[in-house]
Amino acid sequence: MSFKLTILGCSSAIPTIDRNPTAQLLNVNERFFLIDCGEGTQVQLRKFQLSFQRINHIFISHLHGDHYFGLIGLISSMHLLGRKKDLHIHAHAELKEIIDLQLLASNTELNYPLFFHPIPDINEGILFEDDNIKVSNIVLDHSIKCSGFIFTEKRSKRKIVKSEVEKFHVPYDKMKSLKNGADWINGKGEVIPNEKLTIKNSKPHTYAFCSDTRYDAELVSKIKKVDLLYHETTFKKDLEERAHQTGHSTTLQAASIARKAEVKNLLIGHYSQRYKDFEELSEEAKKIFNKVLISYSGLEIDFKKLN
Amino acid sequence: MSFKLTILGCSSAIPTIDRNPTAQLLNVNERFFLIDCGEGTQVQLRKFQLSFQRINHIFISHLHGDHYFGLIGLISSMHLLGRKKDLHIHAHAELKEIIDLQLLASNTELNYPLFFHPIPDINEGILFEDDNIKVSNIVLDHSIKCSGFIFTEKRSKRKIVKSEVEKFHVPYDKMKSLKNGADWINGKGEVIPNEKLTIKNSKPHTYAFCSDTRYDAELVSKIKKVDLLYHETTFKKDLEERAHQTGHSTTLQAASIARKAEVKNLLIGHYSQRYKDFEELSEEAKKIFNKVLISYSGLEIDFKKLN
Repeated sequence: MSFKLTILGCSSAIPTIDRNPTAQLLNVNERFFLIDCGEGTQVQLRKFQLSFQRINHIFISHLHGDHYFGLIGLISSMHLLGRKKDLHIHAHAELKEIIDLQLLASNTELNYPLFFHPIPDINEGILFEDDNIKVSNIVLDHSIKCSGFIFTEKRSKRKIVKSEVEKFHVPYDKMKSLKNGADWINGKGEVIPNEKLTIKNSKPHTYAFCSDTRYDAELVSKIKKVDLLYHETTFKKDLEERAHQTGHSTTLQAASIARKAEVKNLLIGHYSQRYKDFEELSEEAKKIFNKVLISYSGLEIDFKKLN
Repeated sequence: MSFKLTILGCSSAIPTIDRNPTAQLLNVNERFFLIDCGEGTQVQLRKFQLSFQRINHIFISHLHGDHYFGLIGLISSMHLLGRKKDLHIHAHAELKEIIDLQLLASNTELNYPLFFHPIPDINEGILFEDDNIKVSNIVLDHSIKCSGFIFTEKRSKRKIVKSEVEKFHVPYDKMKSLKNGADWINGKGEVIPNEKLTIKNSKPHTYAFCSDTRYDAELVSKIKKVDLLYHETTFKKDLEERAHQTGHSTTLQAASIARKAEVKNLLIGHYSQRYKDFEELSEEAKKIFNKVLISYSGLEIDFKKLN
């Protein structure tokens, strides 16, 4: 099962020629989840040859423009390109009115059903789940209401050993119970122990997306031990006061959260325009937490290859 | 006095890696007028090194996304970059609510005064004028209410001959009357005829922007003899029916309007995604009207050099 993240933009505030605002695409078993959608995201998707018609769920963290100004354009392009299938948008309630007004102004009746799911302002819980994934929101401490997202892969406890189930002629409809640890009793009443037919499954992948946020110790317990934590690092350590004032974090603060939460890897991003060299930000973070990845447009992270 | 047009985007409907939706910048004597603002316009302005802080007036033809989805991002970036001076937006009334809602959702109080001037739905007239320019709207026949714009340079009748006014010691406060054709009577009561102090001024430049529109014979009298007519050519001649259905024009229709209106030059654009070779569209138009310019991102047209 694939579990891959592609960075489409990692800049804060203002788009420039070589920097796109926040957008990420998570591929979970060929189901695509778009996380934030700054201006120009649809062109970034094209650039990296990621079909935006395959996106069924979009999660918007908050209503600062660098996180959603590209959404209405994407919705419109999906329509113009003949999309028929459902699109689900998870965002704070105010976004619905903005989308509705824009569709009304252009006299557009979408070809496809668009479902809007408001993210609770205060409560945390599951926003979406299916057989493969569970997506939950966490409340972040920003200058306006803002939500982080935790993507948790769902896995059965056990993994089928194909050659063995064939050997013992286990019928297909028993696979689910085998995955849950049941033994198989054949037509002659013989018990084939589960351990013969399955092996232990690897741990489900987990991804926590936290942008934008102040340093917030309460985050730690919510993102404990995830495989990858994206935590914004808008500023270097010397601008801690400015970070706090504007609802953002520094490199050291992000790394500190990563260490306390014992996450496996930290992905930094949402860089202020003032920084040209992201290595410098990474170096600062590494003073506190060793495993730091630097986000840039086009970066693809395969969770299977993460240590 | 400069009178230059820069094309920032000339595609219809959907932005792609190499094509931007509609946006144009008109420089009239170093005053900058932005015409339409599709997604990604602010990055296009950066790309062509056009300071968007110098733009004081923005004209939005209609509320299809490919003509305005970049506006809220531009407004926000102007704010984030510390703009203090007034910004005037001329657009159909519905846009104000869209902008207001988006500013409210992000809890943004702009650093600068933003003045919204609704374009009349039906009436045509002057939207803006100052000492250098007059901007009028014309109603276009599109699928939703849509406005074209005519930019007419203002010029005095006569142009000062600097060496002569110095020779005759004409005081500075008389220049305006000289430009209007008055003679100069000096302290001794001697009459210096205007013809000695001034020469005839060249004709004021005129630019008509018409996107998006069906073929509309009523346009002809409104854009008569302009220096440059931008008339959309979404389709080639074989798709006339589709053009009509969608509220657009073909190459031949645009050229026909240009010929009937006796404009000096026709600028084509707003090309459908299906066309890769704009020369082919130009060739079609040239069968009816000879002087055709092909719009592309980065094209700069200096009206002084137009024949």
